[in-house]
Amino acid sequence: MAEKITPREKDYSQWYVDIVTKAKLADYSPVKGCMVIRPNGYTLWEKMREIMDRMFKETGHVNAYFPLFIPKSFLSKEAEHVEGFAKECAVVTHHRLREAAGGGVEVDPTARLEEELVIRPTSETIIWAMYKKWIMSYRDLPILINQWANVVRWEMRTRLFLRTTEFLWQEGHTAHASSDEAREETLKILDVYRTFAEDYMAIPVIAGIKTEKEKFAGAVATYGIEAMMQDYKALQAGTSHFLGQNFAKAFDVTFQDKDGERKLVWASSWGVSTRLIGALIMSHSDDKGLVIPPRLASRPVVIVPIWRSSEEQSLVMTAVTDIKESLRGRVEIIVDDRDQYKPGWKFHEWELQGIPVRLEIGPRDIADGKVVLARRTGGPKEPVAISELSHKLPEILEEIQQKLFTKAKTMMNEHIFAVTEYAEFRKLMKQESGWAFAPWCGEADCEQAVQEETKATIRVIPLDEQKHVSEGETCVRCGQAAVNRVYFARAY
Amino acid sequence: MAEKITPREKDYSQWYVDIVTKAKLADYSPVKGCMVIRPNGYTLWEKMREIMDRMFKETGHVNAYFPLFIPKSFLSKEAEHVEGFAKECAVVTHHRLREAAGGGVEVDPTARLEEELVIRPTSETIIWAMYKKWIMSYRDLPILINQWANVVRWEMRTRLFLRTTEFLWQEGHTAHASSDEAREETLKILDVYRTFAEDYMAIPVIAGIKTEKEKFAGAVATYGIEAMMQDYKALQAGTSHFLGQNFAKAFDVTFQDKDGERKLVWASSWGVSTRLIGALIMSHSDDKGLVIPPRLASRPVVIVPIWRSSEEQSLVMTAVTDIKESLRGRVEIIVDDRDQYKPGWKFHEWELQGIPVRLEIGPRDIADGKVVLARRTGGPKEPVAISELSHKLPEILEEIQQKLFTKAKTMMNEHIFAVTEYAEFRKLMKQESGWAFAPWCGEADCEQAVQEETKATIRVIPLDEQKHVSEGETCVRCGQAAVNRVYFARAY
Repeated sequence: MAEKITPREKDYSQWYVDIVTKAKLADYSPVKGCMVIRPNGYTLWEKMREIMDRMFKETGHVNAYFPLFIPKSFLSKEAEHVEGFAKECAVVTHHRLREAAGGGVEVDPTARLEEELVIRPTSETIIWAMYKKWIMSYRDLPILINQWANVVRWEMRTRLFLRTTEFLWQEGHTAHASSDEAREETLKILDVYRTFAEDYMAIPVIAGIKTEKEKFAGAVATYGIEAMMQDYKALQAGTSHFLGQNFAKAFDVTFQDKDGERKLVWASSWGVSTRLIGALIMSHSDDKGLVIPPRLASRPVVIVPIWRSSEEQSLVMTAVTDIKESLRGRVEIIVDDRDQYKPGWKFHEWELQGIPVRLEIGPRDIADGKVVLARRTGGPKEPVAISELSHKLPEILEEIQQKLFTKAKTMMNEHIFAVTEYAEFRKLMKQESGWAFAPWCGEADCEQAVQEETKATIRVIPLDEQKHVSEGETCVRCGQAAVNRVYFARAY
Repeated sequence: MAEKITPREKDYSQWYVDIVTKAKLADYSPVKGCMVIRPNGYTLWEKMREIMDRMFKETGHVNAYFPLFIPKSFLSKEAEHVEGFAKECAVVTHHRLREAAGGGVEVDPTARLEEELVIRPTSETIIWAMYKKWIMSYRDLPILINQWANVVRWEMRTRLFLRTTEFLWQEGHTAHASSDEAREETLKILDVYRTFAEDYMAIPVIAGIKTEKEKFAGAVATYGIEAMMQDYKALQAGTSHFLGQNFAKAFDVTFQDKDGERKLVWASSWGVSTRLIGALIMSHSDDKGLVIPPRLASRPVVIVPIWRSSEEQSLVMTAVTDIKESLRGRVEIIVDDRDQYKPGWKFHEWELQGIPVRLEIGPRDIADGKVVLARRTGGPKEPVAISELSHKLPEILEEIQQKLFTKAKTMMNEHIFAVTEYAEFRKLMKQESGWAFAPWCGEADCEQAVQEETKATIRVIPLDEQKHVSEGETCVRCGQAAVNRVYFARAY
């Protein structure tokens, strides 16, 4: 039998871990807090990276690579930044091991670094130290650089994909001649992230602005997209920061403008990480395992050939080869012709791995000129004429993509509640049955109190300029005049 | 004026550095020994990665990601491995910074790690610790995993791309049920590397086996490809290791074979790195700057439009847009329509950056229905009818690709000398005027003495089974009976 997944209703956390480990997406490593991304998980990341990389390039960005190591002193140059990251930094202090007296190796005390190096938790500081070298004049602007890299933030409590000490991500770092241009860039990328989440991952998101309390350490303003998981918790799926001139000030980066004046440079930074794989799992998967939206599946269709004799095998495999050939360049196919497993086992295995469409084909199907098609998203199996596969499969995959999005969108809409009473708000958060869209006074103290009392945080303030409260409306918690309506939720 | 490159004849090292920095391939970072790969350099790496990744996948490999950190004790599990890498390891000892009394931050002594972590210099140990979890039976084999990652080897003397403390690479790590299969894998990848170097980078290489002295720390046998740079030094461009059962023993990785017996697993590992960009520069570049082989250029053609008035500008740009459209999907084009630079400056700039083909187009050319085509590899400029561009450009790019390879191959052939006298050998190495293909006794002591006396190392022993010495031939240095003829050279 294929491996069983703990039902979602029984134990949501274990359900998540089961999918990650049994679909072989990732595994625990011997290093505390670090995970191994296995080929099935990495293939998803490669596909995400490929799509986003194309989107970044289409919006004028180029890739580069900056060092893993950041001199300790660099972190301190921006006051809020160091405050945000100092407590979770892995620190390199030595550059050599030596043989230990009792066998094995030990740190060589004579190889102590003059200045300790921090493993990048994010790269603003090292990048702005370089931008100081590269930016002289307005002609050197804008700089629109992205980096695909690993980063390290020391975490005490970790969860596969969602929170790990080391993770993979992309970080964009842009430099501009004007505030408007930097703000425009920040919002352009927020929109790229929203588009990627909704159109490729089939995950609806709420885009908005973070509160002062929740913003990135060193940013003037942080924008983010928030997704609702199947346990109704929120997951921050991407952030885009308007950095103002904070890092330009910290690293003294100025340019000579067209008017001959020297001015400080404006900045944005933005990132998404392998955390998105966690979001993907918790958005679409079920008790059978992972569900991959077709546009993120590098091979969205699996063919399971069925035979009982070697004559049948050769008949079926000839037909399968023809089908594969007829789909070349249109749909990527997995052919599971392994001898040691039975068809039923294979069906379960590919459901566990989340492949959107399965085609079953045996001698009788071939005689009828058809295959049996099963969708990972359920519904009755249906016969499809072999001659129609090449135009029907793309349509069916697209239907599945849309269905996943619509289903997630419906769930999200049904679990965001307009709340004005704090009792109701507390109940909602206690039952973990949805988000609150509630009026707020705008005070950080009140926001903090809500968190202490209910574990809910403000996920985002709506992006539109319009206020979502009318004259006289009051904060859901404190009763003071509300400045806006915002999204509150318990979050990953 | 565009930036000037120091002539190769005048100062080879400065010529190299000038190309790297002035073509904006890389820059020195504030962290000792680490470089920044700038967008022009990273675009080359992306293209190389794209091609090799496809080749790895076509030979059945998949990608995964393992942690950056390796517990210190893991390194010691394989005796030769720790010997080879302990002295160049960056060591993480703490996981937190705190505010320092005098301002800034300092390492928090209360956040000392129980066991120090090494930044991976290569990942055999962490990967084999995982393979122990994943391999139970012959059904789990082979495992054919590759990883694209950063690694750190602490270097005292560094050179951009060629030797840096942190570098990017790919590392394949495979596990097999039999010795034959692991050896076959090792050689298959050596051939992938050779094909990539010759057919894409246009760099001819000598493939062969490393001596015991030069092999990878932990391998049974190391195979490599060696390329000749324009200063006639050798550069190791890729290595593929047959690891035998060394890491399986160190990490106790066994499998139940078909016959029911538990057996140790066999292994290979293999890698190439951003060092290849250094090889590329030193193979083809000239005093005008970088030369990119067309198959490695993400956009191999630049159009420089020429105008003197805004009427001319609009006329020319309309034609350029049409040309670009007609080449879509066939040849990727850069259009340099920047207003602030003159055509002559642009010509030099794109030569410096190594773009294989430049098209110049002005109002008179348009009237004649042609463009002026200039090749980065030289020769007279030639008119090409606009209507013929879409079939001529691919041909011309292919010609340039072949020409670069042939030129490099000729240079290599002309600078490998069959040497039997040590006096001649010493002179060759002293003058740095080529490689020696010379008989060798097979003794490590003699190999060591040659290195001390001439700075030459044995790059590789020829791959074919055949011996390249006849009965009675003697070692070029010691006069003992020779076991084979091998390639000696001074190397990067």
